[in-house]
Amino acid sequence: MTVRDFEPTTFHLSIGSHEPVLRVASGDTIRTWCVDSSGYDRNQEDLTDGGNPMTGPFYVEGAELGDTLSVRLDGVRPNRTRGVSGARIAPSVLDPHFIPEFGYVDQRDVWWTLDLERRTAVLEDPPAGLGEFGEVQLEPMVGCFGVAPDLGQAISTATSGPHGGNMDYRGFREGVTVYFPVAVEGALFHIGDGHALQGDGEIVGTGIEVSMDVEFTLEVVKGKRIRWPRADDGTFVMAVGNARPLDQAVQHATTELVALLHEDYSLDYPAASTLLGQCIRYEVGNVFDPAYTIVAKIEKALLERL
Amino acid sequence: MTVRDFEPTTFHLSIGSHEPVLRVASGDTIRTWCVDSSGYDRNQEDLTDGGNPMTGPFYVEGAELGDTLSVRLDGVRPNRTRGVSGARIAPSVLDPHFIPEFGYVDQRDVWWTLDLERRTAVLEDPPAGLGEFGEVQLEPMVGCFGVAPDLGQAISTATSGPHGGNMDYRGFREGVTVYFPVAVEGALFHIGDGHALQGDGEIVGTGIEVSMDVEFTLEVVKGKRIRWPRADDGTFVMAVGNARPLDQAVQHATTELVALLHEDYSLDYPAASTLLGQCIRYEVGNVFDPAYTIVAKIEKALLERL
Amino acid sequence: MTVRDFEPTTFHLSIGSHEPVLRVASGDTIRTWCVDSSGYDRNQEDLTDGGNPMTGPFYVEGAELGDTLSVRLDGVRPNRTRGVSGARIAPSVLDPHFIPEFGYVDQRDVWWTLDLERRTAVLEDPPAGLGEFGEVQLEPMVGCFGVAPDLGQAISTATSGPHGGNMDYRGFREGVTVYFPVAVEGALFHIGDGHALQGDGEIVGTGIEVSMDVEFTLEVVKGKRIRWPRADDGTFVMAVGNARPLDQAVQHATTELVALLHEDYSLDYPAASTLLGQCIRYEVGNVFDPAYTIVAKIEKALLERL
Amino acid sequence: MTVRDFEPTTFHLSIGSHEPVLRVASGDTIRTWCVDSSGYDRNQEDLTDGGNPMTGPFYVEGAELGDTLSVRLDGVRPNRTRGVSGARIAPSVLDPHFIPEFGYVDQRDVWWTLDLERRTAVLEDPPAGLGEFGEVQLEPMVGCFGVAPDLGQAISTATSGPHGGNMDYRGFREGVTVYFPVAVEGALFHIGDGHALQGDGEIVGTGIEVSMDVEFTLEVVKGKRIRWPRADDGTFVMAVGNARPLDQAVQHATTELVALLHEDYSLDYPAASTLLGQCIRYEVGNVFDPAYTIVAKIEKALLERL
Repeated sequence: MTVRDFEPTTFHLSIGSHEPVLRVASGDTIRTWCVDSSGYDRNQEDLTDGGNPMTGPFYVEGAELGDTLSVRLDGVRPNRTRGVSGARIAPSVLDPHFIPEFGYVDQRDVWWTLDLERRTAVLEDPPAGLGEFGEVQLEPMVGCFGVAPDLGQAISTATSGPHGGNMDYRGFREGVTVYFPVAVEGALFHIGDGHALQGDGEIVGTGIEVSMDVEFTLEVVKGKRIRWPRADDGTFVMAVGNARPLDQAVQHATTELVALLHEDYSLDYPAASTLLGQCIRYEVGNVFDPAYTIVAKIEKALLERL
Repeated sequence: MTVRDFEPTTFHLSIGSHEPVLRVASGDTIRTWCVDSSGYDRNQEDLTDGGNPMTGPFYVEGAELGDTLSVRLDGVRPNRTRGVSGARIAPSVLDPHFIPEFGYVDQRDVWWTLDLERRTAVLEDPPAGLGEFGEVQLEPMVGCFGVAPDLGQAISTATSGPHGGNMDYRGFREGVTVYFPVAVEGALFHIGDGHALQGDGEIVGTGIEVSMDVEFTLEVVKGKRIRWPRADDGTFVMAVGNARPLDQAVQHATTELVALLHEDYSLDYPAASTLLGQCIRYEVGNVFDPAYTIVAKIEKALLERL
Repeated sequence: MTVRDFEPTTFHLSIGSHEPVLRVASGDTIRTWCVDSSGYDRNQEDLTDGGNPMTGPFYVEGAELGDTLSVRLDGVRPNRTRGVSGARIAPSVLDPHFIPEFGYVDQRDVWWTLDLERRTAVLEDPPAGLGEFGEVQLEPMVGCFGVAPDLGQAISTATSGPHGGNMDYRGFREGVTVYFPVAVEGALFHIGDGHALQGDGEIVGTGIEVSMDVEFTLEVVKGKRIRWPRADDGTFVMAVGNARPLDQAVQHATTELVALLHEDYSLDYPAASTLLGQCIRYEVGNVFDPAYTIVAKIEKALLERL
Repeated sequence: MTVRDFEPTTFHLSIGSHEPVLRVASGDTIRTWCVDSSGYDRNQEDLTDGGNPMTGPFYVEGAELGDTLSVRLDGVRPNRTRGVSGARIAPSVLDPHFIPEFGYVDQRDVWWTLDLERRTAVLEDPPAGLGEFGEVQLEPMVGCFGVAPDLGQAISTATSGPHGGNMDYRGFREGVTVYFPVAVEGALFHIGDGHALQGDGEIVGTGIEVSMDVEFTLEVVKGKRIRWPRADDGTFVMAVGNARPLDQAVQHATTELVALLHEDYSLDYPAASTLLGQCIRYEVGNVFDPAYTIVAKIEKALLERL
């Protein structure tokens, strides 16, 4: 196993066929870091424009259209002691008739002090009513990552698609392996947008945004063709759908999970239906972005009986 | 505490201002039973037309528009040893382009043998590939329940709305208290559609459908006005949105949870936003019916600090 | 041809299996009137609660499940010289992020004086900027009408479905024939919610609301089974889908128009696809209600060549 | 007025910051041509990969972020005598439950012979039932055009957004002026995807696809900031929303039309509401692509009174 250390100096606000910053072999591990979603690094220095700046892209030797890129998240670690979150639930997740009452005035950011040892966060200047709230447990995760899409496209890191992107799913945390469909030579993997903590849906438009040190292992699965991101967290296998409305994200995620059961576990459609009908779980990623994210998953323990 | 035993003889396929079958006082507990979604009882006898026939409605003395009806699910128990589930994932939760390949041919039901002692189910005649699958753990729940809507409406038990209805949420199980907005005098509570087990979304159109014995306590919360169902399972407080697309169900559920934090915990909108932003959880109820169901929830342990 | 005059004294806020107010034979013409959507009649007298009160239901002898009810709108005539419209575009048709700026404050009604001879309307007290606006041409139409749904349902006149209801489609005007799927014995036809004029979508929640005299001919088409309302205005044949999101309304309307071409013009699916692909027209009914309305249509002149 | 003739040799399948093929001054007219959506030119020669290959991009001197690019479509003319259309309605616009019956088998293309003088098309090998169908009138239009988006993005010509793209709106025909929000220096205008005819929604995934000669005049409107495409066809002013679901496209288009009335006609929100409420028209562009298109419009004759 080769570990490659990489110091980023350029950042992208879209995921696409940008000039690779590093070429690695399949199986290599990369140790690097990401600025926060506003472009600030571990020293709160403003390195680049905001909007989920990406570290990368990383070119993986041998990857080509029709392959899958496996990304094992070996380390996802906030690297500074302050994080920031949004102060208002986005109007798009509220009843339209409630929005005028809810208002949208006080858009100031909310700052949190992070204790990286104890993995906790406390509000620095709590809004009225949360004065004695105390600390919350950190659950660091990657908000935005993925591979270059086809057709010469470059897609804003504000949104997501079959290539991954800004999915903001709490389950993409240290120890999890995520799979992306390779669309271009070298796959061109991008990563950024660290969250020290985040509720489902990212409904205030942010998690606790923080710069982070990341370590991940990239591996090409030759000839394995998937259509949407998949993942494995040891307990569940997952399929991800990114689209709006959520109904369509559900369609993509469910279809991809059926395909996974068919391809990886040889279940035909009636068998997959019978199993998923009583045992599928859905989770909600981002419901703030242009595209929303749904994760469909099933326990590996159930599949291991097959 | 008064316990009222009730033997149903009529069933409704809509939730509305039907003739009450029993009048009870606020605080009374009712012990009764429900046929399965196809109208079959504990003896597999076909008592009524299928489509989620409801037991009830129960008239609760003192309930009127502007109150809330609290329904504590004291018992939710399958009362026979066979259940049935659908054999195909509904086309509405699959990619439209995949449907022709997925097909829709073999629509036969799938039967399960239930062990009510050990709370398990096994497939009677497993589809190919699930031969050695073994048993799944039961998690009995109520698929469809709610109160009569306003305007003289009677709404099909195939769907859901502010009045409750066919929400098919796995979390509506024994021990949970569910709250409904009272729209008519007496509230007129209906219940049915027992599931011995169900995956998220009820994507094959059924759980393991079964008749059941139910016991529940109805209490009027005078002058408490809610707009959507709420619930409390001891660990979480919840708000339910029923609509299509899911995006709109998310809007209803989120707005109602904000209202709950505001009304019950005195949090203003910035405080509620800050808390929910990092700590909200969404769960997916039915994505099969005309209206879909989203549950927004937050841990009570967090709220108890306030 | 028999013409039946009917004076309404009761009104319903839901479309359902209410007690019929009149029994008519298939082919009979009914002359009656409707209060406006707020319950006011030709003399501006407040006869009943607001929310699209319906005149009817009318029981048509011989109609039963599996038939179609044909409703020819022989007369749709405002019967007073004042109408009222909403003053704000509904938040549900605006960008969520724009709503706080757009505001929702000044909810006062806007009154129009109608000239029934010249078929025009002028604003009585125009908002700033519309002072010299002058008159608009009336295009009277029926906002809400339909037949009782199945399962003992009664559905609010605020919404719509396969049974018709509050579709608010500008094309439902004098001279047009609309077809509804009969679900209960006698069909139970309801009608109301007159608009002297209305933009697409009914985006301020109203047209120019007015009471009206209506005349219509009800005919049972035995054994003709349709799934969604259809219509014929002499130039186009149409199929109506009522659902949210609009995407789903498009699916219902398109599918019903394919069925119409198949059933009434013997076109198989490739032929219907080829023709509709290049010649279909969509129109937008209500995008304000719980269910939205899309009309799919094709020129009769094209079909007459077949 | 300068007319620039341009012979394309490269084509793009995404709209983005690609190398400009020509630099023109604001006010210049460009005469060029486009291959059809599959990459075939006037001689049916296959010049490039299919998927709406774009001619361009054209760099317009002086255009920068915050400006508007005005595109007057001076000529939109099919330049060969054969066109091709899809043979099956897309499953995404059909009821999911109808798709298995509708099938998706015979995907062969349908060819049409075009008479460019008489502006008509006839089926070359009509499917059963359309044998005697005869000719349809051509209504040539541009399916896909727009300007480079921000953030270094390049967006597939299969879809659309604030930058324009694959909107497939029948109203984008010769004589119409379309406005796009400039996001990058030079605007970078792309154009292609000619349709000799197309039904609303492009529901078979195509119009009558054809290569075409195009002529258009590009003008920079300095300091005019719009958020979505707008258009003017002499009779109507229009605003375009591109998103899924259609509900969201309606929100974008309506909000942009309100902004147009506010900015260009000084109407405040109550006045704009009153006017649009009774006079707005919606039209349906593409309902086949990842993003759908809605056009909101109002008669200029009404606005000229203000």
